[in-house]
Amino acid sequence: MRLQLTLRYDGTAFHGWQVQPGVRTVQETLQDAIEAVTGVRSGVIGCSRTDAGVHADRFCCTFDTDSPLRGNKLCSALNFHLPEDMAVTEAIERPADFHPRYQALGKRYVYRIWNGAQRHPIYARYALHRNRPLDVDALHAAAAAYVGTHDFAGFCSAGSDVQGTVRTVTRCTVTRQGDMVLFTVEADGFLYNMVRIMVGTLLDIADGRLAAADLPAILASADRARAGATAPAHGLCLQEVFYDERS
Amino acid sequence: MRLQLTLRYDGTAFHGWQVQPGVRTVQETLQDAIEAVTGVRSGVIGCSRTDAGVHADRFCCTFDTDSPLRGNKLCSALNFHLPEDMAVTEAIERPADFHPRYQALGKRYVYRIWNGAQRHPIYARYALHRNRPLDVDALHAAAAAYVGTHDFAGFCSAGSDVQGTVRTVTRCTVTRQGDMVLFTVEADGFLYNMVRIMVGTLLDIADGRLAAADLPAILASADRARAGATAPAHGLCLQEVFYDERS
Repeated sequence: MRLQLTLRYDGTAFHGWQVQPGVRTVQETLQDAIEAVTGVRSGVIGCSRTDAGVHADRFCCTFDTDSPLRGNKLCSALNFHLPEDMAVTEAIERPADFHPRYQALGKRYVYRIWNGAQRHPIYARYALHRNRPLDVDALHAAAAAYVGTHDFAGFCSAGSDVQGTVRTVTRCTVTRQGDMVLFTVEADGFLYNMVRIMVGTLLDIADGRLAAADLPAILASADRARAGATAPAHGLCLQEVFYDERS
Repeated sequence: MRLQLTLRYDGTAFHGWQVQPGVRTVQETLQDAIEAVTGVRSGVIGCSRTDAGVHADRFCCTFDTDSPLRGNKLCSALNFHLPEDMAVTEAIERPADFHPRYQALGKRYVYRIWNGAQRHPIYARYALHRNRPLDVDALHAAAAAYVGTHDFAGFCSAGSDVQGTVRTVTRCTVTRQGDMVLFTVEADGFLYNMVRIMVGTLLDIADGRLAAADLPAILASADRARAGATAPAHGLCLQEVFYDERS
């Protein structure tokens, strides 16, 4: 039986999702817990490869098992073995050919910016700190340039192995909740570091290093050198993965 | 000049506010930072003695200094020297006889309970986890018994040195934000462990070990043995201290 697990994790102490020799990864930590619960070593397939330091609220992954455990009982058994900075929040059955990356219709990421005058002791691990007040309305208006189908080649770090760089952004907003500023983006897919470069470019606009009016031309240029810096990983959180629930 | 600092801290790695030999405390950590910034060792007076593990969003304290630094410049200088789990968010002048504990008109605490089916990797340090669904409306109705002027002797751990055990609770609510349940209480003062025993008693009501209808009698008995257990420290956060702003 193929099961889909939903994971929530604090990415601070993980070197991202994917197994790498000699470092602590989400994938390997989960595989260890599955082996502890089921007695069998199973390969786990993730919905994406999140970077080191990136967090997840609802990361999806699948594995095949003969274990009779399901639902909250399976979650509880896995969480007993998982470290405190990671938890399984849902376990559902999927068809044997279901693939959490290829069948994802889209994802939503949120990037948090703590915009208080002083740093925040708790949000320090989950939000970038910018003490200069951000003009959220202006950034929200600028972010509209990201919406639509574009070649995001200029918003992609080297090292990606994907085919094609055209993606469709269906939603992109900048909002404020008190001193916290949230950049929220939904797309049918994301290139390597795409969200962090989108945020870094908006921050360059906020600082006056780039003009909001130039953002469409920067996108169209497909030139990484014209976009902004890659914002730090720790502000980023994978919030949701969308699937066709008939699959 | 007497200055009042507002502190935000993650209490996880502190043994509470008050200086104690051989352990890391908020008071001593702050005094070290003040000495680093001003060159003078100053005693800092706090608005209360928060317990080990308790967090603070706006803890108030005062110290006397000849330093010319004020406002955000002083905050930034102190935060440069403070560890990541603690920050000064405000610095204002107060009269020379201002005392942050004696002149506090009241305080607001919030106790967080993560009520999701599975534990939460990020809230693990800031909220008690209870997986059985809490009936927030019933608990809110029960908590109304705390409001008013009562002798809270039964809601006080041994070891307190305060005079008198009568306090006036002006607000006490239980609310839900998704899977997070918030217990919020404002009073003119709090006894040692009072909020944690108030929460523990409500959780005993939620579990059926105590009846909501008996809460007025439990309060009136002033008998610690009749109230519930002391809820764990890590769910508790000092949210606000109220002063007469003319002082």
